[in-house]
Amino acid sequence: MSSAFQMDSVETALKDALKGPTYDEVRRILYGREHKELEIPKEAQDIASKNNFDLKAYEVLAKEEEQRAPRKVRIAAIQFSIVLPTTAPVEEQRKAIHSKASKMIDAAVLAGANMICFHELWTMPFAFCTRERLPWTQFAESAEHGPTTKFLSQIAAKYGIVIISSILERDEDKDDVLWNAAVVISHTGKVIGKSRKNHIPRIGDFSESTYYMESTLGHPVFETAFGKVAINVCYGRHHPQNWMMYALNGAEIIFNPCAEVVENESEPMWAFEARSAAIANHCFTVPINRVGRESFPNEFTSGDARPAHKEIGMFYGSAYVAAPDGSRTPGLSRTRDGVLIAEIDLNLCRQAKDSLCFRMTQRLDLYAKSFTAAADPNYKPDIHREK
Amino acid sequence: MSSAFQMDSVETALKDALKGPTYDEVRRILYGREHKELEIPKEAQDIASKNNFDLKAYEVLAKEEEQRAPRKVRIAAIQFSIVLPTTAPVEEQRKAIHSKASKMIDAAVLAGANMICFHELWTMPFAFCTRERLPWTQFAESAEHGPTTKFLSQIAAKYGIVIISSILERDEDKDDVLWNAAVVISHTGKVIGKSRKNHIPRIGDFSESTYYMESTLGHPVFETAFGKVAINVCYGRHHPQNWMMYALNGAEIIFNPCAEVVENESEPMWAFEARSAAIANHCFTVPINRVGRESFPNEFTSGDARPAHKEIGMFYGSAYVAAPDGSRTPGLSRTRDGVLIAEIDLNLCRQAKDSLCFRMTQRLDLYAKSFTAAADPNYKPDIHREK
Repeated sequence: MSSAFQMDSVETALKDALKGPTYDEVRRILYGREHKELEIPKEAQDIASKNNFDLKAYEVLAKEEEQRAPRKVRIAAIQFSIVLPTTAPVEEQRKAIHSKASKMIDAAVLAGANMICFHELWTMPFAFCTRERLPWTQFAESAEHGPTTKFLSQIAAKYGIVIISSILERDEDKDDVLWNAAVVISHTGKVIGKSRKNHIPRIGDFSESTYYMESTLGHPVFETAFGKVAINVCYGRHHPQNWMMYALNGAEIIFNPCAEVVENESEPMWAFEARSAAIANHCFTVPINRVGRESFPNEFTSGDARPAHKEIGMFYGSAYVAAPDGSRTPGLSRTRDGVLIAEIDLNLCRQAKDSLCFRMTQRLDLYAKSFTAAADPNYKPDIHREK
Repeated sequence: MSSAFQMDSVETALKDALKGPTYDEVRRILYGREHKELEIPKEAQDIASKNNFDLKAYEVLAKEEEQRAPRKVRIAAIQFSIVLPTTAPVEEQRKAIHSKASKMIDAAVLAGANMICFHELWTMPFAFCTRERLPWTQFAESAEHGPTTKFLSQIAAKYGIVIISSILERDEDKDDVLWNAAVVISHTGKVIGKSRKNHIPRIGDFSESTYYMESTLGHPVFETAFGKVAINVCYGRHHPQNWMMYALNGAEIIFNPCAEVVENESEPMWAFEARSAAIANHCFTVPINRVGRESFPNEFTSGDARPAHKEIGMFYGSAYVAAPDGSRTPGLSRTRDGVLIAEIDLNLCRQAKDSLCFRMTQRLDLYAKSFTAAADPNYKPDIHREK
């Protein structure tokens, strides 16, 4: 497995090894039509170089239409590692991450970003593997008026950008319980609303189900100045019906903030689950994963027969943007902090809808009935045997 | 696009170009854990060489369990091109295809196959691009007692294998209308039952919706001597809820007989739609596409501004087997006839179910309600705006 921790990305490996028409064909079959790189302003590139993160930008074009102007939006997927050791005071850890994020936002904005999303629970280490309550639950904060939302609101208003922020939420105004929430902050700095994680893992180091429950907020979509967005948090990526409900509520872009490690064997699924969802639902999807390794003060076990240890594994980054026509951008690095900009034309959603027609042919009424029947504990599967 | 018609497969291109640990890593990330090649008996290989088709075999292992013996089944995905020109008499065309298929079945059986499935509508050219009725509708036949079912029943009984056969069905016993059906023939040669295509394309050269309607048979699963199987025909691949209902009815293997061409731009989606479904539903999926070019006597248009022409394009083959743990076998060639054998252990379905837990966390009751609401013409999408 040692090599798993070195390769920058499949895309760079292919580019290095394959040449000419073979490269073109492999690239076409694996990634769909090509998206050109956008030029990045020197000031943005300088911030990236100075702060040791990658900055990549691509253009995802739609066809020209007569009755609609292009609806071009620059979205930024931002992935990074935590900054301080997990033994540092909670407030210091959070502030150091805020500080790192703010430089990455600066670069993204200089590169024209209108809308930004980070990986899952970006303000904290992914400490659920420990199953310990303190100090980790102190990273929780109010979605509406916590320190992270305040911090981002100022930035959003200053730059006129929309920010999607996945945080560990403390519902201070209600039950005081924890949630895995995503806050949507408008270009004026106001909180438009929040979404919560619909599907919670119960496996290995992802002991999240002992910290928070499944969302009761359904599948909200947020109409921003730059398009209608929704957030499918992490493990919801594996549930096609979750993506579908966000799309049925009108989402044009579904962000998918994640925390996934090489060790949980999800990496071979990473490149295509969100992409399948973009196709099936005629929308853009943006999976974003954290990077780096995180080590915790006390040892824990992972439910996989290994001896107790202190490290959760290697978060493999690899953020990308999937388009509704089956194409996708290259991914960010598996190992480095990075900002991925994609200038997408939202007109592509309706164009895909009109040509692939999956919304038209999805037979939602049939599945409403079938799912209702199948959800009944007395449901008898429709199995046929030789007579 | 010319190079699109030459490359054998992405897998062979990667194997030729990448070396050492880079190859291992790219292969792991793109295809999941490696499945070893199985040895193929010389007699089987001889039939393949003599008849100019590829024969590949892989072993998809599960973990050993204490309470269950392994449930190993050898499935065969068979892909090929039509034999005679489409101008030949219908009966001659069908007989020539039967003859080709029978040699491929012979090789598959010598290689140990227990269960065989061909691509979509394997007994005929994919003539729906023409929108002509005659002579093409003469390829239709009864699912229960048509010439193809009779032909396959004899083979199934002789070899003790299960055969899944996708045909253009004439419902002779009822309305005499056409359907896109898949017949399941048991190892004793009896018809266990039939399934019909649930989602019908309405785009470009795939004018199928003018020939037959969506299935009214729901999502039947067939319990065979070698496991519980279902058939998701072609365009149903794009509909995640279709896969899900087959799985909810107990399918362990979902075959996906297809007819897809390079020109309809589905090739970049081919590698991951069925694979996402295998993961999301803890089952095996087997997409199988025909190969070769098909030319028709009269010119037709494709709804894409090109001048009228007589050829539908290049069917790109590439059959593969996707496992519930996110891994997949290499694919067959994009251009050549082929038999892909996979020895799969059906115990892997429950093992994936217990470790990934998507069936447990899928919240079917929530989606039954949400889909019911969303299917109502008066449904108001849940959209939130800045106040």
